[in-house]
Amino acid sequence: MPPFKLHGMVGSTNTNRVFAVLNELDLDYELITVDLTIGAHKNPDYLAFNPFGQLPAFEDGDIKLFESRAIARYLAANYRGSGPDLLRSGNKAESAAVEVWLDVESQDFNPPASVLVFEVFIKHLLFKKGPDEAVVQLQEAKLGKVLDVYEKRLSESKYLAGDEFTLADLNHYPYLYALSKTAHAGLVTSRPHVSAWWDEIAARPAWKKIVAASPY
Amino acid sequence: MPPFKLHGMVGSTNTNRVFAVLNELDLDYELITVDLTIGAHKNPDYLAFNPFGQLPAFEDGDIKLFESRAIARYLAANYRGSGPDLLRSGNKAESAAVEVWLDVESQDFNPPASVLVFEVFIKHLLFKKGPDEAVVQLQEAKLGKVLDVYEKRLSESKYLAGDEFTLADLNHYPYLYALSKTAHAGLVTSRPHVSAWWDEIAARPAWKKIVAASPY
Repeated sequence: MPPFKLHGMVGSTNTNRVFAVLNELDLDYELITVDLTIGAHKNPDYLAFNPFGQLPAFEDGDIKLFESRAIARYLAANYRGSGPDLLRSGNKAESAAVEVWLDVESQDFNPPASVLVFEVFIKHLLFKKGPDEAVVQLQEAKLGKVLDVYEKRLSESKYLAGDEFTLADLNHYPYLYALSKTAHAGLVTSRPHVSAWWDEIAARPAWKKIVAASPY
Repeated sequence: MPPFKLHGMVGSTNTNRVFAVLNELDLDYELITVDLTIGAHKNPDYLAFNPFGQLPAFEDGDIKLFESRAIARYLAANYRGSGPDLLRSGNKAESAAVEVWLDVESQDFNPPASVLVFEVFIKHLLFKKGPDEAVVQLQEAKLGKVLDVYEKRLSESKYLAGDEFTLADLNHYPYLYALSKTAHAGLVTSRPHVSAWWDEIAARPAWKKIVAASPY
């Protein structure tokens, strides 16, 4: 089997989502760096992999994918090996819960979290620009309401989808990690169950390996 | 087997996504109406089904789900019966393409499409309010760029994920249909391949049944 090829960048939030799955499943890959800071994601070479010009993209031999959540799910579904069953695919009720919380991340958590992280973190990192305070306030309020639901959920179960760590938890890594590096980290630390859950998942070896190599 | 229970509302965009899958797979269900127009989605009874207070929610015996895309996938994965294989689950390359385009809908298409439809359609329907023109212009431009990628993709394959109709196409029904009822329908009709694809999927009996019962 030829090694997987990951087109992305160390430090890129959405690339981190795929790094995390690759590490959890102990899979080898070749990283082909697409340098966001020089606009390499808008080059025709890269647009052939992802016509939307966003990181990351992925090659498994002839099978080409983009969208970090699709890549993560593809790996979890096809290359579990001796790693955790990130989709709880053997159990109808458990996998249903995974599906629900995967979509909560994608539809409820990610919109405010990604915009907030862009404003208060990435904008400075990439463009040396300050945040738009009106956007920050609005998205912080939205994210707070989402995390209130998480707080209740995580008072009832150890992980979002139940008793086991799943892809629904994993998909939160990139933006929760970036958020933890900002003045808005209190969104997590002020909520005891969310905070304990974050500490728990952030301590997993697969994620700590990413943090060790992270530029931030 | 007790019948499925769908908590939602005729005419609700995200409920329409679940109606479409139920019809495609020829599954029986009981509709429990949650009337958005009187705020029933914020009642404690309903919040027990979906803590985010959004339509729809779903019951399959003891298994309870919310988030329309999670419900749609759950049904496609577990209750295919004699219906189409909406996830192309038997084929690694085909299912990978379905995953990619499911996430394109969720991450690239839905954000501008849902905001645009809210501004130019739902706001008037529910609140008798006019659109915020600055928001309309911005989201129309974003959606146009996404549909430019679709136009190229659909010049190469009949459906988004390949030669077969899949959940990746189906998930587009609610907002493309609502958009077709507005002055912004040209976003689709001005792009020949997107327009032909929309005509093709909108003609499926499972969707026509929904349109026949739609209040708009």
